[in-house]
Amino acid sequence: MEFMEGGLENVSGYRFSAVECGIKYRDRLDLALIAGDKPCHAAGVFTINRVFAAPVRLCRERTGFPVRGILINATNANACTGEEGYANAVELTAETARLLGAPENSILMASTGVIGVQLPVEKMLKSLPSLVEGASAAKGGIVARAIMTTDTFAKECAVRFSAGEKSYTVAGAAKGSGMIAPNMATLLAFLLTDIPLAKADLDAIFRRCVGESLNAITIDGDMSTNDTALLLCPASPSPRSDAPALSAFEEALLAVLKRLAELLARDGEGATKLVRVRVRGAADVSDARLAARAIAESLLVKTALFGNDPNWGRIACAVGYSGARVEEGTLSISIDEARLFDRGAPVAFERAEMASKLAKKELVISVDLGLGDAEAEFITTDLSYDYVKINAEYTT
Amino acid sequence: MEFMEGGLENVSGYRFSAVECGIKYRDRLDLALIAGDKPCHAAGVFTINRVFAAPVRLCRERTGFPVRGILINATNANACTGEEGYANAVELTAETARLLGAPENSILMASTGVIGVQLPVEKMLKSLPSLVEGASAAKGGIVARAIMTTDTFAKECAVRFSAGEKSYTVAGAAKGSGMIAPNMATLLAFLLTDIPLAKADLDAIFRRCVGESLNAITIDGDMSTNDTALLLCPASPSPRSDAPALSAFEEALLAVLKRLAELLARDGEGATKLVRVRVRGAADVSDARLAARAIAESLLVKTALFGNDPNWGRIACAVGYSGARVEEGTLSISIDEARLFDRGAPVAFERAEMASKLAKKELVISVDLGLGDAEAEFITTDLSYDYVKINAEYTT
Repeated sequence: MEFMEGGLENVSGYRFSAVECGIKYRDRLDLALIAGDKPCHAAGVFTINRVFAAPVRLCRERTGFPVRGILINATNANACTGEEGYANAVELTAETARLLGAPENSILMASTGVIGVQLPVEKMLKSLPSLVEGASAAKGGIVARAIMTTDTFAKECAVRFSAGEKSYTVAGAAKGSGMIAPNMATLLAFLLTDIPLAKADLDAIFRRCVGESLNAITIDGDMSTNDTALLLCPASPSPRSDAPALSAFEEALLAVLKRLAELLARDGEGATKLVRVRVRGAADVSDARLAARAIAESLLVKTALFGNDPNWGRIACAVGYSGARVEEGTLSISIDEARLFDRGAPVAFERAEMASKLAKKELVISVDLGLGDAEAEFITTDLSYDYVKINAEYTT
Repeated sequence: MEFMEGGLENVSGYRFSAVECGIKYRDRLDLALIAGDKPCHAAGVFTINRVFAAPVRLCRERTGFPVRGILINATNANACTGEEGYANAVELTAETARLLGAPENSILMASTGVIGVQLPVEKMLKSLPSLVEGASAAKGGIVARAIMTTDTFAKECAVRFSAGEKSYTVAGAAKGSGMIAPNMATLLAFLLTDIPLAKADLDAIFRRCVGESLNAITIDGDMSTNDTALLLCPASPSPRSDAPALSAFEEALLAVLKRLAELLARDGEGATKLVRVRVRGAADVSDARLAARAIAESLLVKTALFGNDPNWGRIACAVGYSGARVEEGTLSISIDEARLFDRGAPVAFERAEMASKLAKKELVISVDLGLGDAEAEFITTDLSYDYVKINAEYTT
């Protein structure tokens, strides 16, 4: 397994396109397409928000069947738009399918942007011919760029792996920088591979890998109406179902998803630091995740990190209210290599020295609950003035 | 029932004191005392954080028996301090009891401040005689001032009420401006009354009233290790147990607690607005509280409020992930009197006009789930640059 330059264009069998449709703003890419040359299996992981966007409903209905592509738009979420919003998504994907010469219901859709505004369907329909005509196998990078909202850089990566004597590729593009939380947040992620897999294998592997990557980052704990991660593979009549091939694919997919998750966290709104929260010694994995997530989401921990304050008390406090089984007497806390709280006892340290150690771009918070063998990791960021600025001024 | 000027000093039968002990800083009140002239019943509501401070452990052990007072310190939480921290709390309260001529275990304790540092016991023991000698019935206000940490003003209030032909008083003092969350947050609240009540009545009424007041405010969702609310009443041999008296007391206590909760929210760290989140039409009260709390804690909602952005989509989104039963088609959202989303359909509005309406100090977010008759209210604030500043720079 090895990382490659670039992103989606490394995977053969797909074409890519994006245009400036003017959905909400002029002069920005806002309508994109991923088209499979042949029918694909699709696996999807979606928001669990009970208020979910029309394209999420459409994807839930269609991922059980072979698909031919994904229509994507930015700047309008098509959420809280009722039956009209759903009908718009159906119409746009049907027209895309017609232009591609594919079955009517074989196009998925994903949207991001403002909530509660109907899509400008006529304008989008007019842009579809040029979108479809412009599709090329080389233009994978344009998809990652077209889906950016408050993102400051495009997020993509690709991995090559071997299964038996054959070499395959898996690649992904993602967007999201605020509203990132477990269970998908305002996140769109598109993964492609050229290894043919059975639909059931694709679903199971995708769900496992997302759980360890996209569902283990948290910026602000908010979970959006539009979160969608889609994975396509060739719907070949002879799928690879040998265990070594499945295992090699899962390893490669997880590597791609973890890299994307890290890129998403690095671009967290206003973030100045990437922080890995590692919890071990938990009674079970559920406890480990509860504790890691509580630390990763605590505003008091995140503002302390921004201020380079080695405030382990706030970490202990977050662990305590996380819901995980915790005993003060077996609890230990470190930041990077420095142990600050050791099995219930504070460790003396030089505050100025620790503060200067914290003034780094990457930190690890390690917590040992001392109660078992389970562990979990979350990725988070600090919380800065710029988070407030971005979200106070970002008009819907 | 009527509100009175001032705070704790309105309640007869208690004396108050505070001194500058120098626990962590010089020249600030940091050690305070509330002493009952006679034995009192005590009711307590405490943090549910599994990492809880030594004084919380001490209060839990002692509130089942008659007490004579409360020793309070600021600037040091006596949390994560192990058995030594607990022994320190026992020693300090025993010496206070001795000086008051009260039974050894009859003094409660409450602490707030830095986590993980042992109390300077010798220094505090030396301050206790002047603390006890200085106690006077008139100095109720000094307790509210001594317990302030990042609070910008002291929080106290008092209410007079009648039961039968007699007139009684209930009053309270509280601190807390960050780390405010349901289940008590970093909050200390001390309530006193002069109506003699049975211990069981006191407990039940206090728990109900706290649930509707202190447990319905949220600033940052963090729940501290030290949250303590204590209520004292005379442990008279002939308690008032007539239903009208209990009812009059409960009404007065709830009024005091709600006023304190509002003062706490108004002083929320960096808050520029007080926001009441009212959810109705919920299938049950639990759903109503889930939805109200999710809105009240959403960083995206709170930063939008700071930016005067009528971003009802973020409100819909928070309701959707709250865990409450929600259907988009029956959901309505208003800010103050303006309906922005009506049973699943966006309502057109003039953005500039709405933004200027939002530029107020107090707002009401009203959400109707349209699924039942249950309702709940939370009080919250917006999230500003100053919240980040205060918490990044507040060194433990």
